[in-house]
Amino acid sequence: MSKYYPELGLTREKLLKKVKAQMSKKRYEHVLAVEEQAIKLAKIHGVDEYKAGLAGLLHDYAKELPAEEFKRLIKKYDLDKDLLNWGNNVWHGMVGIYKIQEDLVLKDKEILHAIKVHTVGCKKMSDLDKVVYVADYIEPHRDFPGVYKARRLAKKNLDEAVAYETRGTVRHLIDREIKIYPQTLETYNYYIDYLK
Amino acid sequence: MSKYYPELGLTREKLLKKVKAQMSKKRYEHVLAVEEQAIKLAKIHGVDEYKAGLAGLLHDYAKELPAEEFKRLIKKYDLDKDLLNWGNNVWHGMVGIYKIQEDLVLKDKEILHAIKVHTVGCKKMSDLDKVVYVADYIEPHRDFPGVYKARRLAKKNLDEAVAYETRGTVRHLIDREIKIYPQTLETYNYYIDYLK
Repeated sequence: MSKYYPELGLTREKLLKKVKAQMSKKRYEHVLAVEEQAIKLAKIHGVDEYKAGLAGLLHDYAKELPAEEFKRLIKKYDLDKDLLNWGNNVWHGMVGIYKIQEDLVLKDKEILHAIKVHTVGCKKMSDLDKVVYVADYIEPHRDFPGVYKARRLAKKNLDEAVAYETRGTVRHLIDREIKIYPQTLETYNYYIDYLK
Repeated sequence: MSKYYPELGLTREKLLKKVKAQMSKKRYEHVLAVEEQAIKLAKIHGVDEYKAGLAGLLHDYAKELPAEEFKRLIKKYDLDKDLLNWGNNVWHGMVGIYKIQEDLVLKDKEILHAIKVHTVGCKKMSDLDKVVYVADYIEPHRDFPGVYKARRLAKKNLDEAVAYETRGTVRHLIDREIKIYPQTLETYNYYIDYLK
């Protein structure tokens, strides 16, 4: 694990301090676990481990921001107005990357994209996107029916793992009668064939 | 039940003959059952019974058309090209209404719209749309877990019935790993709050 993040101009110690300041202890532990999981998956699938780790570390950076802050960011950066109809679950990735760019000097587009879509996914995800999306779902603290299968697929094939995760996420939302973000459906429709 | 359909210039006998010629015996029985169910729901909820019955009778008119015929209609009427990526389940309503207009002189926009969206629904459906959408789901031949609840809701509240049906349909598609038409998701997102 790098001790220094050159593009941020920060030592690992200082970066961890900044991340920790944004969230609860429990979420901070999750974030560290996703970082480690993302690096493991990157190693298996030939993805840049440094980028996977940094994206994992920052993926939930904005998760505990208040709604007002997300609304400010949506307006300030002239983002799709429809985002205002959604909530934290969609915002913390899709809008959260603007907060990250305000607080840290992160410019790497691949890392930012992986953070952006880590909850809702998208069509034609990059392998880095997939690694972060899947690592978030299977990190060791996760415990839900199907997590063992998700872990097996994650080692074997990233596309199958994305498909399995997206199907599980959509089913979970339907069971709870929660609205589904259209981009989540796009991810489902694009990847579902990989399960067959 | 009307014996004559003035806007079609057809007796009921002749119209039934035309409908019957388009489909299997089993589907024809389903169509008659949806007609009857739609009239019943229309009566309960103060919707035009004549329109509900005619929409019910014609809702699956195009269901057994070959794919080539749907593709011809999509091109001929310059419909959304994305429709080509979908299949019979989406086509028989969304595209089927063009076949109905070619074969019969049906011009009533409310009836055509109810037929158009009878499988995928849409935001802000009219009460006639809802009656046909729901009648198709609960007619007496239908037998699936939840059909009793669907029938109860249909009598009580059309919006709740639409929400319940759409949730059930989306869950069914996910369980079978089938792609979901974006308009079906729009219906789900628009109506799901009625279940709460």
